[in-house]
Amino acid sequence: MSTGEDMHALVERLYPLCRSITGDGVRRTLGIVAEYLPLRVHEVPTGSKVLDWTVPREWNISEAYVADAEGKRVVDFAESSLHVVSYSVPVSATMSLAELREHLHTLPEQPSLVPYRTSYYAPDWGFCLSQDTLDALPEGDYEVRIDSTLTDGHLTYAEHVVAGEVTDEVIVSCHVCHPSLANDNLAGIAVATFLARELAARDPYYTYRFLFVPGTIGSITWLARNAERIGKVAHGLVLACAGDPGSLTYKKSRRGDAGIDRAAQHVLAGREHTVLDFSPYGYDERQYCSPGFDLGVGSLTRTPYAGYPEYHTSADNPDFVTAEAMADTLAVCREIFSVLDRDRRYVNLSPYGEPQLGRRGLYDSLGGRSDAKQAQLAMLWVLNLSDGEHTLLDIARRSGIGFGAVVAAADALSAVGLLAPATGA
Amino acid sequence: MSTGEDMHALVERLYPLCRSITGDGVRRTLGIVAEYLPLRVHEVPTGSKVLDWTVPREWNISEAYVADAEGKRVVDFAESSLHVVSYSVPVSATMSLAELREHLHTLPEQPSLVPYRTSYYAPDWGFCLSQDTLDALPEGDYEVRIDSTLTDGHLTYAEHVVAGEVTDEVIVSCHVCHPSLANDNLAGIAVATFLARELAARDPYYTYRFLFVPGTIGSITWLARNAERIGKVAHGLVLACAGDPGSLTYKKSRRGDAGIDRAAQHVLAGREHTVLDFSPYGYDERQYCSPGFDLGVGSLTRTPYAGYPEYHTSADNPDFVTAEAMADTLAVCREIFSVLDRDRRYVNLSPYGEPQLGRRGLYDSLGGRSDAKQAQLAMLWVLNLSDGEHTLLDIARRSGIGFGAVVAAADALSAVGLLAPATGA
Amino acid sequence: MSTGEDMHALVERLYPLCRSITGDGVRRTLGIVAEYLPLRVHEVPTGSKVLDWTVPREWNISEAYVADAEGKRVVDFAESSLHVVSYSVPVSATMSLAELREHLHTLPEQPSLVPYRTSYYAPDWGFCLSQDTLDALPEGDYEVRIDSTLTDGHLTYAEHVVAGEVTDEVIVSCHVCHPSLANDNLAGIAVATFLARELAARDPYYTYRFLFVPGTIGSITWLARNAERIGKVAHGLVLACAGDPGSLTYKKSRRGDAGIDRAAQHVLAGREHTVLDFSPYGYDERQYCSPGFDLGVGSLTRTPYAGYPEYHTSADNPDFVTAEAMADTLAVCREIFSVLDRDRRYVNLSPYGEPQLGRRGLYDSLGGRSDAKQAQLAMLWVLNLSDGEHTLLDIARRSGIGFGAVVAAADALSAVGLLAPATGA
Repeated sequence: MSTGEDMHALVERLYPLCRSITGDGVRRTLGIVAEYLPLRVHEVPTGSKVLDWTVPREWNISEAYVADAEGKRVVDFAESSLHVVSYSVPVSATMSLAELREHLHTLPEQPSLVPYRTSYYAPDWGFCLSQDTLDALPEGDYEVRIDSTLTDGHLTYAEHVVAGEVTDEVIVSCHVCHPSLANDNLAGIAVATFLARELAARDPYYTYRFLFVPGTIGSITWLARNAERIGKVAHGLVLACAGDPGSLTYKKSRRGDAGIDRAAQHVLAGREHTVLDFSPYGYDERQYCSPGFDLGVGSLTRTPYAGYPEYHTSADNPDFVTAEAMADTLAVCREIFSVLDRDRRYVNLSPYGEPQLGRRGLYDSLGGRSDAKQAQLAMLWVLNLSDGEHTLLDIARRSGIGFGAVVAAADALSAVGLLAPATGA
Repeated sequence: MSTGEDMHALVERLYPLCRSITGDGVRRTLGIVAEYLPLRVHEVPTGSKVLDWTVPREWNISEAYVADAEGKRVVDFAESSLHVVSYSVPVSATMSLAELREHLHTLPEQPSLVPYRTSYYAPDWGFCLSQDTLDALPEGDYEVRIDSTLTDGHLTYAEHVVAGEVTDEVIVSCHVCHPSLANDNLAGIAVATFLARELAARDPYYTYRFLFVPGTIGSITWLARNAERIGKVAHGLVLACAGDPGSLTYKKSRRGDAGIDRAAQHVLAGREHTVLDFSPYGYDERQYCSPGFDLGVGSLTRTPYAGYPEYHTSADNPDFVTAEAMADTLAVCREIFSVLDRDRRYVNLSPYGEPQLGRRGLYDSLGGRSDAKQAQLAMLWVLNLSDGEHTLLDIARRSGIGFGAVVAAADALSAVGLLAPATGA
Repeated sequence: MSTGEDMHALVERLYPLCRSITGDGVRRTLGIVAEYLPLRVHEVPTGSKVLDWTVPREWNISEAYVADAEGKRVVDFAESSLHVVSYSVPVSATMSLAELREHLHTLPEQPSLVPYRTSYYAPDWGFCLSQDTLDALPEGDYEVRIDSTLTDGHLTYAEHVVAGEVTDEVIVSCHVCHPSLANDNLAGIAVATFLARELAARDPYYTYRFLFVPGTIGSITWLARNAERIGKVAHGLVLACAGDPGSLTYKKSRRGDAGIDRAAQHVLAGREHTVLDFSPYGYDERQYCSPGFDLGVGSLTRTPYAGYPEYHTSADNPDFVTAEAMADTLAVCREIFSVLDRDRRYVNLSPYGEPQLGRRGLYDSLGGRSDAKQAQLAMLWVLNLSDGEHTLLDIARRSGIGFGAVVAAADALSAVGLLAPATGA
């Protein structure tokens, strides 16, 4: 099987689980991911203060249905985790359709689809169903049952760290709280999992920390518990909606010109893509880019949230995401981090006049020819702009020379002692 | 009567008076304005040193004419204050047409119009008349008489202050030195007068100081006498040519990105208008924006000075300015100051991660819906960009959300203690 | 003869000499220039350490040829200095055409032209010839002879200084190392020579230092020997390819907005021209703009290096450069330095409000006229923007007023004590 197919198989395994911001659905999800990737799982008790928030009670659910007068289950959680509003309080009652309607959610404009709804912080209960199903329900009494628990427990999240040459970190974050929705965000989980495996084999420059966290409260919990680590976070990427057939979209960090912003735009430049300015809405970049942290964290998706009709509906199922799309997202992530890992500032150690490249074996000996060699030109550019201000990517952009050739020039110059990494770069 | 008609009536009352940079014409003008608006009138003695200048002698005039051999007055100040060069020294003589011609000013390319001329600082005298009138004068001797006085007296200007929530000030300045010219600047005086009345009823944030000053020497005098107040001037606007039928023109302050510049451009964005960069020519923005002061003072006109054929001629009469145009200028001023009054910098007091809006009653409780609400989005934007750098107008521009919605979000967040005004904003 | 013709005559005199980075060809070239311009000639010994480089051995050559079996010279240095690879080691041998071919350089795509080749720092020898000549050579043995010497000696360069009002310097640099190539760089030498003569007659503001140096090693040697002078170099221009019929090209300094960059672009604005961003390739701007020096040195050429088919071939002969083109380059240089000499920052000494120009005789006394005078407007602009930040050229650009009028305004204002040069400008 190709990596794309492996990722799709992971999506299919994870799809039936009822994830939420807490509970066993998250634990089981992380358990499956851990078959691919060693995970350090954290359990944070209900009531823990995390930044401005408090870890909520843990929610679990065993059964939930609406049954008609004949006892036939017309809406059944066993069929899809979407059928119950996430964090629904327990219910056991019989009520008229009219009374029940106030707890039913449909999508009148997409009548065959089941919506996704949550009520994390306001105690409530409800069912989600298709408009078609609702329209077919006769008047009469219905039995309503939700066997859920809301108890002191834990919030669960996991980390996987790929140690790099330096302890400065790149965080890759994906949310694990959505129930049976494939693109949002099982595809993101799958791409992050396989990206981590690849990176471990590559001896990266940065240390890469993969975060599998429930949306909002999960990233807030991680930020709250890692205050001392924040200063080491050099870059980051939030991965979501990674498997739909649309083209890629990169959303810039709040800073707008962070290293990840420049690397991502460089990699995407040659292909169909969209770049969005930062906005304080979307996924967990909202937390990483809150003004107090203001981390250089961007977000990579294919079609962004709410941008496709399947979004937050039962149509976001494993058929909607493809092995090819996930493989493509993975490839671009790989390339972005490859650029990021090499995009550094250097200092020319012989900055007065050009150093004599010839006696160091770096220059073509026969002068006067009009065909300037690219490699030599790359060295001249790197020497000229390595003043501690410009990164190699800046130099590639300014010179029009490919990033790879600029990196090769920097390596060659470093090897003969003409270049050194800028301190603090 | 509409406000526009009220303003036009004020223009008509002020029109016949012979204003100059000093003298009773200015005093009578301020006296009429004072019927609408309490004024504090200042009298500054001749010879007072004001910055690089000296308050000149006061000029008054009772009668002036040119009479032909038959005693018929062919040019008569009684008909229009434009007929005499402002600050003309007294004359009583008989002379040939040839001698007289050196003191006659016409507009050969607009032969039916009388020009406006002054000679404030060089002792001289002259008459302004139409080319048609001049062409009709036969050779012969003419009696020339100007009953004017140039004596130690005072320069007169007035202020009206609308106290605001803070003592930081917005100055609104208009020149009161032009004689019988309606657009330049009786319309500006009228709009300033009615704007002041409205603002007083609105409990503004800033303190608004309206200045009715003779051009150049008047604003210089005010600046010289208010050295300790200059530091409190947060913003300012020079009002002129406020009543012609052309569209509005905003001329930016020397700074180019002052608060008034951004507010004015925001308000004008949705309508036909022109924005000009600062230039050191025009009206009293020349003084307020001199490099030593460099105040954030812009200028609002309809068609700018010298941009219409009636400019500085007898055609700039009350028929040239309309109630509608003045009402429109007033409305835009009102809106600019409304924006300016609310365009402030705030600081997010919970900047690490998003604060939990839900428990403060600021967030829709049922999550998962794809229709993000504008009000919530506005709060997220205000929280994210309130780092003491961005004003609410910056946030509106960056987010694409209306200024009103951004202000409402800031108010809601302030009410629950999540936001505070930035110090020094 | 016109100056253009004088310059062309100088090119023709210099053309036959065999220049290289050292040797008698350079000395003879400087000897001829010295007939036009007093030169201070420097001789720097072989082995001298200059920045990262070492002054190489001196190369001289008396005779060189390839002769066929009948003794007929088929390639002869006596015909053109291009025929021998510069810095060829001595050779005296007989060899087959196959062996010889490895030392022969041609231009297969320009078969009638002889290329220019050097091997300064790798000991080698070779001949350059046309492809046509090579194709006509029969197989057989050839006598090969190069009577050259590579011995401890000197590197030769020259300076000419035009003393200015201040000791801050403008350097004008041209390379003198290319053999029989007219545009590259005899035309540059000729324009520099006549420019220096003109400047001496003009009492310039800056001190102008003309550098006649071998490319790369010459400018590096000058920089190494003038460490204490570098801080006085305010501006600079590298002159090359100054005589071809193409339009002018200005290549910006590494800084991109140095005074010379702005002056050159201002002067070129009204004519067909090209502006290039800095790149670390080309002529000696590579050294002056290395990051350790980062001088404000641009480069002026007509068609830039490698941009014309005659480049580095025998077709770059005196017929390729014209008196008109050199006269045009000279005229533009003259204008650039004229602007640069007057483009300074001033400080308004009466910055609070406008100073009263009228009592200083600088303002038209009769006000109210709509035809604002350009000279007065220029004074207002200079006063308003003379805050130590803006140069006169900035003011000209911002105001749209011609540089000459702005300079005249600054002079008039300085004369009455309203303006003073900004310190450090």
